[in-house]
Amino acid sequence: MDWVSPFAPTDIADLPEIGGVRLATAAAGIKYRDRKDLLFVEFDKGANIGGVFTSSKCASAPVDWCRQHLAGGTARALVVNSGNANAFTGMRGQTSTLATAQAAAEAAGCRPEEVFLASTGVIGEPLDPAPFSAHLGRLAQEAKPGGFLDAARTIMTTDSFPKVASARADIAGEVVTINAIAKGSGMIAPDMATMLAFVFTDAPVSAAVAQRALAQAVPVSFNCVTVDSDTSTSDTVLLFATGAAADRGVVSIDNADDPALAGFYDAVTNVCRDLAIQVARDGEGLSKFIEVQVRGAVSDESARKVALSIANSPLVKTAFAGEDANWGRVVMAVGKAGEPADRDRLSIYFGDYRVASNGERDPAYSEEDVSNYMKNSALTLTVEMAIGTGEAHVWTCDLTHDYIAINADYRS
Amino acid sequence: MDWVSPFAPTDIADLPEIGGVRLATAAAGIKYRDRKDLLFVEFDKGANIGGVFTSSKCASAPVDWCRQHLAGGTARALVVNSGNANAFTGMRGQTSTLATAQAAAEAAGCRPEEVFLASTGVIGEPLDPAPFSAHLGRLAQEAKPGGFLDAARTIMTTDSFPKVASARADIAGEVVTINAIAKGSGMIAPDMATMLAFVFTDAPVSAAVAQRALAQAVPVSFNCVTVDSDTSTSDTVLLFATGAAADRGVVSIDNADDPALAGFYDAVTNVCRDLAIQVARDGEGLSKFIEVQVRGAVSDESARKVALSIANSPLVKTAFAGEDANWGRVVMAVGKAGEPADRDRLSIYFGDYRVASNGERDPAYSEEDVSNYMKNSALTLTVEMAIGTGEAHVWTCDLTHDYIAINADYRS
Repeated sequence: MDWVSPFAPTDIADLPEIGGVRLATAAAGIKYRDRKDLLFVEFDKGANIGGVFTSSKCASAPVDWCRQHLAGGTARALVVNSGNANAFTGMRGQTSTLATAQAAAEAAGCRPEEVFLASTGVIGEPLDPAPFSAHLGRLAQEAKPGGFLDAARTIMTTDSFPKVASARADIAGEVVTINAIAKGSGMIAPDMATMLAFVFTDAPVSAAVAQRALAQAVPVSFNCVTVDSDTSTSDTVLLFATGAAADRGVVSIDNADDPALAGFYDAVTNVCRDLAIQVARDGEGLSKFIEVQVRGAVSDESARKVALSIANSPLVKTAFAGEDANWGRVVMAVGKAGEPADRDRLSIYFGDYRVASNGERDPAYSEEDVSNYMKNSALTLTVEMAIGTGEAHVWTCDLTHDYIAINADYRS
Repeated sequence: MDWVSPFAPTDIADLPEIGGVRLATAAAGIKYRDRKDLLFVEFDKGANIGGVFTSSKCASAPVDWCRQHLAGGTARALVVNSGNANAFTGMRGQTSTLATAQAAAEAAGCRPEEVFLASTGVIGEPLDPAPFSAHLGRLAQEAKPGGFLDAARTIMTTDSFPKVASARADIAGEVVTINAIAKGSGMIAPDMATMLAFVFTDAPVSAAVAQRALAQAVPVSFNCVTVDSDTSTSDTVLLFATGAAADRGVVSIDNADDPALAGFYDAVTNVCRDLAIQVARDGEGLSKFIEVQVRGAVSDESARKVALSIANSPLVKTAFAGEDANWGRVVMAVGKAGEPADRDRLSIYFGDYRVASNGERDPAYSEEDVSNYMKNSALTLTVEMAIGTGEAHVWTCDLTHDYIAINADYRS
């Protein structure tokens, strides 16, 4: 069905170019007709790479491929397709990734191990490598600096808008650029990385720095999003650092502990958080975007588990869909999380309205005020546990008829 | 909304009487108008009791009360109300349970600690004990042997049909009777016990035996049901053994390890399983009842976790709603369970149709045959993991528009 998120931006600006990154896209007919589904990215002088992947025990063939070659630390090309996830495809899946990497390597003039792959779409269908071989040679010739918005659009599946983010960071007084694109709308649950996201920077940093940047960013960005509690087989986040900024005099940094990287790490975290929020705002079928905040838990990790228990609860999510400030279901979700909690110290807020305190209904709260607040399309739910200093936030959405309609029809 | 499960039986027979158990019901106006909402059960000569409760960290006041007094081992009365769960009601919740237990104790001529309580319905609303005091005296006088079906109807909330089960068991050559009633339709997830269930028997067995019977039954019955992954604050299963069968010459047994109890334990497990399946068949909004079987896992517990991961997946549940044999989503749910799994040894069956084997699509399977099978209202999904001998089954249902409609409107 042609569902469009009410949060879909009407006007999305393209991102700036990144030195050392060239992109090209094609309509390869992998599953969809009349739309682009193949992204080719080439790093002419190579890029140092970091990566984080799904924790699924049934990871896709491209995830296996990337994990295997990440240790090399260098990328020359990235190939991403939508329409088919190449997951649960057995030996044929491995044959397909190898053939695609070989075709891309030939096009880019590099070794197959320097090609990174990601696929998203239907699970369980064999992925024919022929469309890749047919297009990659031409794409390598056509690839140009820029075109990130087109790239973000090409990797969409059930997404209703392309997701891009950009930031500039200071390294030892010089500026570097960070661009990132992501896709994701359903089968979204935080566990390591969720969905596909690709971060590109001209910063002259090592693979160790790239890995550290993602290790810091992912837990507070992609791992804080849930649409439907379902973790994908294909989740992949890759960061490519071309080092092109060195030509402009930016100092090269190999040591991930170098304090000069603080601004760079923050900027990577910011673009990842920006994309993560965009994913939640494009949650399949949503009518409400919800930020769940948990404070006063025994630890940050405990707070995150409680926040996820709330954000994944079908009863909480349907209450939001019904614009019902149903704090009873929030209590239920806190209770089922299994984390330390003292029922009689809990307080619950919808927006700034406290509806419950010290384990029971707040006698002062106005049902009318809270009901009016619930009509907003972007909402905040805060749980104060009052037993510690741990805190977390999770971004999610409500559960609506449109989620059912989208997923009862779509073979993903 | 007035939703009725397609599995709702049209003609439910009442259960036989149980010696030593008298029941009465009333319309006390706790929340609903013009329907019964208060059940009173009296055990004239007392009953030995076992109990299993929710693992929620935000358990209701009646659960706290029952836990506190279970160690006494003896019950003289049971009071159950629907319409209000008396959960997250702070000190007022405790005042309410005490007042209700005192009123019931006065009516039954026993101590408050011999009264057991259960409440189900809205969370977070104070429960006024006045309707209990107003009715319990009269109910104690009116209570009669029999009327279990009426009792099951009285404790319903969003249930679309009353749930009853009965069995006879042999103890050392003599027959005892076991009756059980349950309620549950939404906020159903297996963790210790889910929902409310009450088991009554005339078997002359000790509290230790009663507890053992539930400890054996619950893990393979109520803990194998999930409607929506949401664990209630109020889950309670109590077993009352009046011992009345001793009057007919049935031998009394105190030792839970006595081999003569084998048939009794089996019978309790069977009635609990019967009720558990009825709960799944009344899952809010369902169009399909689904049995998920997992075989060949590293252990039974691992198999159960994988089965629950599948049964709780919104994407699997919506695929069933769409009559789509979407094995890709099953693979996803196996992968996210976090349990040992070898993607390349997995086989998946819908009914008797194998759709995937050895980690990829079964080349022999007929999409048409499987699509026809998916049109049935009761379906079986089997996952063969082929890495061990652990197995489990979980009963669940699909996720439909009616679930959203029920829960976006109902303040539970």
